[in-house]
Amino acid sequence: MANRSWKVLVTGGAGYIGSHTVLELLQADFEVVVIDNLSNAYKDDNNIKPECILRIEKLTNKKIVFIQCDVTNLNQLRDIFKKHKFHSVIHFAALKAVGESCEKPLEYYKTNVCGTLNLLKVMRDFNVKCFVYSSSATVYGIPEKLPLVENMKTGNCTNPYGKTKYMVEEILKDLCTSNQEWSVISLRYFNPVGAHSSGQIGEDPNGVPNNLMPYIAQVSVGKREILYIYGNDYDTPDGTGVRDYIHITDLAMGHVKAMIYQKIHNSMGFKVFNLGTGKGYSVLEVIRAFEKASGQKIPYKIVERRAGDISASYADASLANKELGWQATKNIDDMFRYMEMATK
Amino acid sequence: MANRSWKVLVTGGAGYIGSHTVLELLQADFEVVVIDNLSNAYKDDNNIKPECILRIEKLTNKKIVFIQCDVTNLNQLRDIFKKHKFHSVIHFAALKAVGESCEKPLEYYKTNVCGTLNLLKVMRDFNVKCFVYSSSATVYGIPEKLPLVENMKTGNCTNPYGKTKYMVEEILKDLCTSNQEWSVISLRYFNPVGAHSSGQIGEDPNGVPNNLMPYIAQVSVGKREILYIYGNDYDTPDGTGVRDYIHITDLAMGHVKAMIYQKIHNSMGFKVFNLGTGKGYSVLEVIRAFEKASGQKIPYKIVERRAGDISASYADASLANKELGWQATKNIDDMFRYMEMATK
Repeated sequence: MANRSWKVLVTGGAGYIGSHTVLELLQADFEVVVIDNLSNAYKDDNNIKPECILRIEKLTNKKIVFIQCDVTNLNQLRDIFKKHKFHSVIHFAALKAVGESCEKPLEYYKTNVCGTLNLLKVMRDFNVKCFVYSSSATVYGIPEKLPLVENMKTGNCTNPYGKTKYMVEEILKDLCTSNQEWSVISLRYFNPVGAHSSGQIGEDPNGVPNNLMPYIAQVSVGKREILYIYGNDYDTPDGTGVRDYIHITDLAMGHVKAMIYQKIHNSMGFKVFNLGTGKGYSVLEVIRAFEKASGQKIPYKIVERRAGDISASYADASLANKELGWQATKNIDDMFRYMEMATK
Repeated sequence: MANRSWKVLVTGGAGYIGSHTVLELLQADFEVVVIDNLSNAYKDDNNIKPECILRIEKLTNKKIVFIQCDVTNLNQLRDIFKKHKFHSVIHFAALKAVGESCEKPLEYYKTNVCGTLNLLKVMRDFNVKCFVYSSSATVYGIPEKLPLVENMKTGNCTNPYGKTKYMVEEILKDLCTSNQEWSVISLRYFNPVGAHSSGQIGEDPNGVPNNLMPYIAQVSVGKREILYIYGNDYDTPDGTGVRDYIHITDLAMGHVKAMIYQKIHNSMGFKVFNLGTGKGYSVLEVIRAFEKASGQKIPYKIVERRAGDISASYADASLANKELGWQATKNIDDMFRYMEMATK
């Protein structure tokens, strides 16, 4: 079957990872329908589509069916599945701020867990049984060993956000055990950064960024005065936290590879893949790389550790390479290009 | 405040544990409103209340407000909270068959996890912040050590039913961390058996019983020919599974004690108590005790282990004794009285 006759529903397709994935899916000739509640996307009142979707349409010269819909809305989901015959669903729609999840746990569980359950029930009712889940390295909790390998223990997550990701993975496992017809791929993202090379789409968080890269970007353009580094007494080479930063376009390509894999392999049950580079960088190393690339100093201040942060996390990414034929192509220096989107 | 002015919503109050708890709450003079979707209760078409609620009204000479409602129905829950000002909620409503949970995981997660989330959201919106949760010893997963103590590790549950109980406990912990006003008690039940001493209410499972006691009862009255014992090669004294059987009236009294505790202690956060006897009996010991009490032989056959069963489980019940002033009063012999309800 040609990609163009493989119809994919992308939930949360107007968000940061979702929009980059939609772009790559279209370029790989998949047919895409996007739903999004627009909680984290900009839409001009004069348009029915959010800005990033319009830009993707221009970049690809293709039309995208866009429907404003929240995944917790069961009836609207049913209507969408009545209208479209999907082959697979890529599910990004979720709340994603660790700190906020500690303050509003009920909202996180409702949107991330119950929203996913709604979607899975509708899929089952309409006999759509290919699913790609937007999981996270946080499901490993506090790593016992590094790098993180897919068959390591999960759970013991340090915050509600991570727990929602862990719980959904458990639900997906149970679902695949109960019915052999499902093909579910859970992609465990490490730390996505950067923006598409066109500069047309990117990450534009509202409020104070939770993640390092947009934070650096905002300091670099003077939107914020100083970068706070949360702890320099971790058990890492320079004491600051170590993460595996993966470029958003590489991450998006992981989903294209997952789609191709699902097209080939029917009823394969539950599979998990890390999407990371396999290399960890400390906060100070990231700052130094940015300073080198931009020729600009980033003022920073060491403050106390943030609750729920772990010292180090990076992937063993060999399974995705072996099974999906995927690997990260961009390094830390590539990640500082086209960051202006984050600061517009 | 006198108990009679403490108004308690009991969800699943027409079920096995729920109905026995409603009876004890009324006898302790609490005001009770029951909601139940009647998925596991008998109702005569001529009545608006299920049979067990009518019987409890007769036994106690008190009226019970009963509303047929499913906890996944958010709007109906809101209407109920608009009409009644509750002080606390005891939440029994859940699906509870381990085997079925493996076949229908989505239904179990939806009812048990999302149903509870619905209820908690409505409680928060109506500023009701005392909650008693119907948890289970299954949250301990495969025990590392016996007896089971409340501060032991939870998770790694062997089936979706157990996972739903574990997930809700995690949600409740996060909720109490996010807002100090909550008072949540999670009661981890061991294996509830028996019936009220009046013989008027009891356990009456539909279909093949999942649990040992109703199974023995059905064999004893000839409703089933033979008792299947799932495995005799467990690491226990006689090779059959060991469980902590707690009499239903003792269990119900644990909830009354929890209500009294909540009346006294405001905003106490999240507390967990085991409700068990502290003593484990093997399947063969239970059969022997029944045969001794009834003078009747129970034919049995050893068959293969059942997926998800653990070898042994019994409680350290000292915390509930110390904090709630509760302990089990009935032993294994008491548990075989009044079992006819299970076989009617």
